[in-house]
Amino acid sequence: MGALLLTPDGSRLIVDGRYITAARGRVATSAELEHVQVELASGSLEESVAAALSAIATTSIGVEAGSMTLDRFGRLQALTGGRFVPTERVIEQVRLVKDAVEIDIMRTAARMLSDAATDALAAVRPGREERDVAADVEVALHRAGFTKPAFDTIVASGPNSALPHARPGSRVLGDGDGVVLDFGGIYDGYCVDLTRTVQLGAASASFNRVFEAVKAAHAAAIAAVRPGVTASSVDGAAREALSKRGLGEAFVHGTGHGLGLEVHEEPRVARAGTGRDEVLRAGMVFTVEPGAYLAGVGGVRIEDDVLVTASGYEVLTAVPIDLGSYGAAMERRGGRRSDPAGER
Amino acid sequence: MGALLLTPDGSRLIVDGRYITAARGRVATSAELEHVQVELASGSLEESVAAALSAIATTSIGVEAGSMTLDRFGRLQALTGGRFVPTERVIEQVRLVKDAVEIDIMRTAARMLSDAATDALAAVRPGREERDVAADVEVALHRAGFTKPAFDTIVASGPNSALPHARPGSRVLGDGDGVVLDFGGIYDGYCVDLTRTVQLGAASASFNRVFEAVKAAHAAAIAAVRPGVTASSVDGAAREALSKRGLGEAFVHGTGHGLGLEVHEEPRVARAGTGRDEVLRAGMVFTVEPGAYLAGVGGVRIEDDVLVTASGYEVLTAVPIDLGSYGAAMERRGGRRSDPAGER
Repeated sequence: MGALLLTPDGSRLIVDGRYITAARGRVATSAELEHVQVELASGSLEESVAAALSAIATTSIGVEAGSMTLDRFGRLQALTGGRFVPTERVIEQVRLVKDAVEIDIMRTAARMLSDAATDALAAVRPGREERDVAADVEVALHRAGFTKPAFDTIVASGPNSALPHARPGSRVLGDGDGVVLDFGGIYDGYCVDLTRTVQLGAASASFNRVFEAVKAAHAAAIAAVRPGVTASSVDGAAREALSKRGLGEAFVHGTGHGLGLEVHEEPRVARAGTGRDEVLRAGMVFTVEPGAYLAGVGGVRIEDDVLVTASGYEVLTAVPIDLGSYGAAMERRGGRRSDPAGER
Repeated sequence: MGALLLTPDGSRLIVDGRYITAARGRVATSAELEHVQVELASGSLEESVAAALSAIATTSIGVEAGSMTLDRFGRLQALTGGRFVPTERVIEQVRLVKDAVEIDIMRTAARMLSDAATDALAAVRPGREERDVAADVEVALHRAGFTKPAFDTIVASGPNSALPHARPGSRVLGDGDGVVLDFGGIYDGYCVDLTRTVQLGAASASFNRVFEAVKAAHAAAIAAVRPGVTASSVDGAAREALSKRGLGEAFVHGTGHGLGLEVHEEPRVARAGTGRDEVLRAGMVFTVEPGAYLAGVGGVRIEDDVLVTASGYEVLTAVPIDLGSYGAAMERRGGRRSDPAGER
């Protein structure tokens, strides 16, 4: 545990014994941290923070109500005589629009994710269990250079693909299955997120119809992205495309979510009236991931990461969309693209 | 998102559209869930819960203050006229002592972790980056049958091993390095956790001395486990063993933590006077993981999972402790134990 106090008079980093050597080493070797004073905590995190604050004249200090638990807040209030004030959407608003450094990182991360997708999609083969495919996807994320997966990888095959948040299980992928693969990674602290739907063997006409509808919704939503429009209008574009094709009811979630230090942050890209809407501004980064799910039959989801630019949008991820193109490509190459000998 | 309401009159599971098919399917196929009524949420989680509660005569409802955020609590209070009451240590106390079903799961999980340790420790070889070793450890956890890692795997080599919570990085393991490997998995919802310290090549006399001291502390702490003593007395046994060998100051953390649905839960096994202490009871499960860390030199940590029994203790994990025994064993066998062809 640790606390960093940034004040006009200097910065104090208070950590417990497990982190003191690491913190001292980091501060000693980083020019930009030379004014940070590292201290060993005495007592709990809350006690250390309260003691440090007693020397500061500020009367009230905001906390992020969406992150702080009731018990920690209660302890801080008791130790400081109630100097903390819950806030909402102060930090969140700052994080909503990414600066140039953040955009660079996320652009790199999205390129890495697109590279990892080749190995990830090649792991989708008949005869394998969903959970083994998921493990291979996470190895691909590691090899691509991600610190770790951004969330638990989803591999949903056959009827399981009708479950938007399915957990990969012991179901064995079979010829004829549609498979939804949803995975992401954290790179330099930032999250990126991608979904493709793969067809093993021949798809039925009805599955193809659902796939084409979701693909159209995905394209329509991306085309709607530009500064000055609401996030809900992007959702509306996806929803309209699916409704027109008779799949409005099958689209059971929002079109997307913001990406950044967390894998789900603002803006929400969802139906108007179901929560906070947001007017898009250049620098926002979010997913566009419409889907259609038919219980007992299967589902399709297609997801990319989109940056709002001054004039419109930039799709940060770059992976072919077409159903079955990976499986076919892999078969032509005689199996998996990478092998353990090529491990970094 | 979802909410399960258990009342004397029946059970209601309220989920949003992403989970409705999965929830209906699960309830339809599980005899023990036949009385659960699945409903689609209308509006936010808080709105759905508030609407459901309006039909129930209870006046107040406890929430876990250690888990609930300030903003959600505020929304629930506003929607229900303040029917929620923060609680601490109500649910935590129930979870503190495991029942027979939980102990069976954790015993199985600990055996699986011990099996995974063979592959995990075999991944520790000179010439490899810490982060690649960590990725292999996570593959070993998957192969052993774990749902996912219980926490980010620690691989801390050479001087990095002096950092108890080091993140695996690009440091290349070298001959002569001590390497701390700390990893765990989640199986059937329950967490297990193991640490071993491996020596690559010959250890220095001073490193051997630290290793033997930590090994003695680990044995002393385990030997101190029995019902009726305090958790802090177990910590004291480890601390005394290290202090006697001049390493009291080098032991910068508590001796252990409870395991269960979370990887850090009660009881804390730490110094008396630094937080809540607990009298041990049969059915408690916690780690015993003393360590000694010398800045710039290196560190050693040895961790097992221990169950308090009616007469004393049972060590659930079973992996050889001796420094360097794995590396040597692997060299005799000519490399890694497992190969991709053996993948499940």
